[in-house]
Amino acid sequence: MWGAIEHLGRDGRTRGYLRDAWSPADLELRRWFGQEAARRGLDLREDRNGNLWAWWGDPSSRPGVVTGSHLDSVRQGGAFDGPLGVVSAFAALDLLRARDFRPARPLGIACFTDEEGARFGVPCVGSRLMTGILDPDRALALKDDEGDSLAEVLRGAGRDPGGLGRDEETLRHIGVFVELHVEQGQDLVHRDARVGVASAIWPHGRWRFDFHGQANHAGTTRLADRDDPMLPFARTVLHARQAAERGGVVATFGKTRVSPNNANAVPGLVTAWLDARGGDEDAVRALVDELTDFSGAEVTVESWTPVVDFDAVLRERVAAAAGAAAGAGAGAGGAAGGAPVLPTGAGHDAGILASAGVPSAMVFVRNPTGISHSPEEHADRADCHAGVTALAAVVEDLCGS
Amino acid sequence: MWGAIEHLGRDGRTRGYLRDAWSPADLELRRWFGQEAARRGLDLREDRNGNLWAWWGDPSSRPGVVTGSHLDSVRQGGAFDGPLGVVSAFAALDLLRARDFRPARPLGIACFTDEEGARFGVPCVGSRLMTGILDPDRALALKDDEGDSLAEVLRGAGRDPGGLGRDEETLRHIGVFVELHVEQGQDLVHRDARVGVASAIWPHGRWRFDFHGQANHAGTTRLADRDDPMLPFARTVLHARQAAERGGVVATFGKTRVSPNNANAVPGLVTAWLDARGGDEDAVRALVDELTDFSGAEVTVESWTPVVDFDAVLRERVAAAAGAAAGAGAGAGGAAGGAPVLPTGAGHDAGILASAGVPSAMVFVRNPTGISHSPEEHADRADCHAGVTALAAVVEDLCGS
Repeated sequence: MWGAIEHLGRDGRTRGYLRDAWSPADLELRRWFGQEAARRGLDLREDRNGNLWAWWGDPSSRPGVVTGSHLDSVRQGGAFDGPLGVVSAFAALDLLRARDFRPARPLGIACFTDEEGARFGVPCVGSRLMTGILDPDRALALKDDEGDSLAEVLRGAGRDPGGLGRDEETLRHIGVFVELHVEQGQDLVHRDARVGVASAIWPHGRWRFDFHGQANHAGTTRLADRDDPMLPFARTVLHARQAAERGGVVATFGKTRVSPNNANAVPGLVTAWLDARGGDEDAVRALVDELTDFSGAEVTVESWTPVVDFDAVLRERVAAAAGAAAGAGAGAGGAAGGAPVLPTGAGHDAGILASAGVPSAMVFVRNPTGISHSPEEHADRADCHAGVTALAAVVEDLCGS
Repeated sequence: MWGAIEHLGRDGRTRGYLRDAWSPADLELRRWFGQEAARRGLDLREDRNGNLWAWWGDPSSRPGVVTGSHLDSVRQGGAFDGPLGVVSAFAALDLLRARDFRPARPLGIACFTDEEGARFGVPCVGSRLMTGILDPDRALALKDDEGDSLAEVLRGAGRDPGGLGRDEETLRHIGVFVELHVEQGQDLVHRDARVGVASAIWPHGRWRFDFHGQANHAGTTRLADRDDPMLPFARTVLHARQAAERGGVVATFGKTRVSPNNANAVPGLVTAWLDARGGDEDAVRALVDELTDFSGAEVTVESWTPVVDFDAVLRERVAAAAGAAAGAGAGAGGAAGGAPVLPTGAGHDAGILASAGVPSAMVFVRNPTGISHSPEEHADRADCHAGVTALAAVVEDLCGS
């Protein structure tokens, strides 16, 4: 399956992926998803919010077991964040069928839309809309860097923007959701295990800082006459690092937009996005409050997700099944009978569903360097196979036969 | 004439102009230049480097008097920087013809290509190529934000990239060059004069700072494990301001490019452009050396223009003619018999020609706020008319009759 998609949206120079939601590359990936579903005789559906579902069995008769992830990427992202969960879902289904497994419950494979938020700034748009966490009017008004709104982009892709919003029918189909994902850290390396299971997702959010100034000529405007927003932005970047260290959280300014962005002009506006997360919700909130005061910028909350604790009973069941299946090939950590359980600082659609009351779990596949959101993101082939084996065992256990 | 071009390349939201070299808006402006030339029976030529020339009389017989400026803009620039010099050139010619003036020397109106360097990062590309200051191979390899090289863009516009380089024939046509430009400061406001004349252009340059780091996930990468290039960039921005104050020069980071520019990723690369200028060349160089050391970045010189002193005899002649013509409507400063003479921190094609040995001068038109490279850039109508009157007087004086 990798062969069919590895070139899609790839930057030939950096080898990084550019798979913005609803971009030509994303539309190609969605088409590929449909082909994989058709090849397996699955029933393909696109819900009102643009998420894709491939069903084995009819979920309107009885809520199903769903696994999957997303196919969009951050800009200059890696090959695994998202696609590994979708490819592994199809591969796990193939493995179960090869064993003549007949699920007692419907089995679904999901592809959520715009998980990364690379284009419109808000992550997990598909799952947030479906669960009603994101207001459809707010979503439709989001703009990309070209100034096109999500509403315009959806219409351009032949979708009906009027359909967005909480989707009770689709939610009823999901009895339980399991997302397999490449790990975005090195916990599994340190534990010498191929696969692990998520305990919780840190509270995390994204805030837009608009630093306003006065655009002017870089040669003729005296320093004393300048109102250069690059200066408070720079001070805020440095202060964010100090405050994060002090608060035991992480804070990142990874995206900026400078206007007019001319080498020979003092900027009129610097916009920067703060990503802040941590194990302690109060510490994250305190950091953002401190930076808001310090910066002097106009600050807008773009997203906020409180701590998500995955269902403990489901988690133990997933850990047991995954650990037993993948343990054979792993070291001490994996062979102990259950997959290791770890918290994560990364947001996922599984976290959104969990926070909306859908029983959800996550399976992580070891990442040798821990690097993610980068072309250097990697997972070894043997670990990916262990992930598929584990996912198949989890699905088999949850579906019953 | 303004009516025909004021909408071209204008951002409907900000009212700022987006007239990148060789963009559709720029091509429209070039077409407009040709129409204005044709309407006046002038002989239109495009030289090998893409600069436009409209001749009254044949400059191959005898070097002519040339006036003009450029039509491209910085991004989100104002209406006057560039176009005022071209429109005033046509208007001055109309004024002279209305007086039945017959020039003894050919009279040319010039439009230089890519003065601002908004697209490819290097300013005054047209005049630098024509004079041989910019190497054609280096120019052709310059890339815009989309990754398109100047060579590709020129071919796309139906031009021959092979023609670029020093152009002796065109240079022989220019006996003297006078560029009229909106002032980019408030010297004329303080002197209560509608027009002024340039004494010198400060030494100035542009340096690209590449801050290399390691792209990674903003949620799962511990602070201690990060190599985040946004931090040294921020420190360098703040240090640049201090060092510029200390050195009595100006320094600006007005353009940045963050890669991958995802809100949820630690950047792998921050590129920022330093613009530095000042009255004292050694002070500018010392600032850049200090910042290079301090930043730890990979630093590349993108352009450097030593101090340009405009020809003193020509300057006095232009000041006398401009002052006499425009003085009537101005206050004390302009009525004193000659236009005030001022230095400028801004680079111009006239500076490039002067540094290449072409006798050149500049006429400035008052800017009430001093703001430039911004949609708020402005010049009062009466001051623009005074500029045309002054320019006509200068051209009349230089051409002889």
